[in-house]
Amino acid sequence: MTGPAEAARLIGDLLGAVRSESGLDLSAVCLGTPGLVDADRGVVIIAPNVAGFRNLPLAASIAERLGLPTFIENDASAAALGESRFGAGIGFRHLLHATLGTGIGGGIVINGRLYRGARGLAGEIGHVVIDQAGPRCNCGSRGCLEALVSGVAFAARAQRLVDRGRSPILAEVTAGRPADSRDLYEAAVRGCQASRAEIQNGGHLLGLTLGGLVNVLNPEVVTLSGGLLAMGDLFLEPARKAMHSIAYGPASGTILHVSTLGDDAGLLGAAAVAFERLDESVPLG
Amino acid sequence: MTGPAEAARLIGDLLGAVRSESGLDLSAVCLGTPGLVDADRGVVIIAPNVAGFRNLPLAASIAERLGLPTFIENDASAAALGESRFGAGIGFRHLLHATLGTGIGGGIVINGRLYRGARGLAGEIGHVVIDQAGPRCNCGSRGCLEALVSGVAFAARAQRLVDRGRSPILAEVTAGRPADSRDLYEAAVRGCQASRAEIQNGGHLLGLTLGGLVNVLNPEVVTLSGGLLAMGDLFLEPARKAMHSIAYGPASGTILHVSTLGDDAGLLGAAAVAFERLDESVPLG
Repeated sequence: MTGPAEAARLIGDLLGAVRSESGLDLSAVCLGTPGLVDADRGVVIIAPNVAGFRNLPLAASIAERLGLPTFIENDASAAALGESRFGAGIGFRHLLHATLGTGIGGGIVINGRLYRGARGLAGEIGHVVIDQAGPRCNCGSRGCLEALVSGVAFAARAQRLVDRGRSPILAEVTAGRPADSRDLYEAAVRGCQASRAEIQNGGHLLGLTLGGLVNVLNPEVVTLSGGLLAMGDLFLEPARKAMHSIAYGPASGTILHVSTLGDDAGLLGAAAVAFERLDESVPLG
Repeated sequence: MTGPAEAARLIGDLLGAVRSESGLDLSAVCLGTPGLVDADRGVVIIAPNVAGFRNLPLAASIAERLGLPTFIENDASAAALGESRFGAGIGFRHLLHATLGTGIGGGIVINGRLYRGARGLAGEIGHVVIDQAGPRCNCGSRGCLEALVSGVAFAARAQRLVDRGRSPILAEVTAGRPADSRDLYEAAVRGCQASRAEIQNGGHLLGLTLGGLVNVLNPEVVTLSGGLLAMGDLFLEPARKAMHSIAYGPASGTILHVSTLGDDAGLLGAAAVAFERLDESVPLG
């Protein structure tokens, strides 16, 4: 692959092949994509974790190949809508969803509809500052949630434990290759206290952030998905406790649910976006 | 005054007197009140800065005295709607408003309507954690925005400068009485570098928080009101700079406006809430 235009072409080819082989009569396509998305124009503005995705007219490129109405949406926003319609958010009007993976994404559902904000950028909860003296973030700022609690952040902390000789167990688990968040959890399971503490502290920081956002947004439910949830209650319980302690007054009872859809949340949500977009009479918030 | 019930009675008496003397033919009453408000039930759940305001059925109490439909709304939310309809937010669909006074309040307008969240609690931006090791907040948590940047927080920092002998100028300004944020600004104007630094750092922390919330909410405009704005550009410029540096991608251009309505924002916003409430066919978000 030589660049983003080529990537867009390959995605189009793949979708064309799926359509041919399945025989499905498609009405539209919607892609969930990482990064800042101008959904109205179908452009990926920037995706810091995908090289070259900058001002990429992804929707137009695929629409041209397939001859179908094509929409794009931020992947975490699509997942939020998916959880709201088909998953852990069923029955709630207002939902905040967080995707906890390599990076941290988020999406907001208000009155059952995706809330995009002024320019389709809403939901970027990974770039809330929680420690102004914290590590540099991919976005250019310092101490964002994503710089402290994410797959990348846990990997950096795990590697530091190894480099500083703080965790013989983790060194054994990684056996010389770069550490990642799975290694950190594996070491914690094998009894490494330093690894346990890193995971618990990460959960705590996530919970502080979610609690603050609960105070701002007052959702009925906060839903979580993503690879970091593989760390289970060791990560989740400190997050839950911190969120409930920061959420203020009656909001302290705000429900925290783990996704019931997993990776399907984004797929189902993207499909829901396409149906919304086709029905042009419905305003998209 | 002996307690909250008495306070509610006095407010009712006052409104009754205003109605009689003005000869106005009132359709309804709406009060903006500090604290967490259950607007649908007309109850002040808790107002940490007003002694005794806890589960107080303020609306019912006043409705009974005046024989008029009576509504209540969080004061900062009312101000947000006021700015949106009649002030610095005219012409914008999505607005985040912050009230910077003794405490820190906030309100969110989405698609021109007040966003209240699941239980009417939305907009409590004063209780976003920005320093987990920071000072204790009135809400019970630690390091909330309100605990670091508010009239109360600035007063505590000013007093500490005096107590530690760090600012002879501030000691001269306060002349032995407890320091407040006005004294801090006065000392800064008279050339006290320590006081200047406190104000600038407060503005910076406010801006970090607003920038993070811009990433989450993607409003078109952020509006500010409240007594702390008397500290002028010394406070406002670091806030503006930090907000624009944290706000991510195209959101970095989000507009920051100072209120054009001042204290009238809450009054006009409360009136707008009453009109919305009377028109029961309009959903209230």
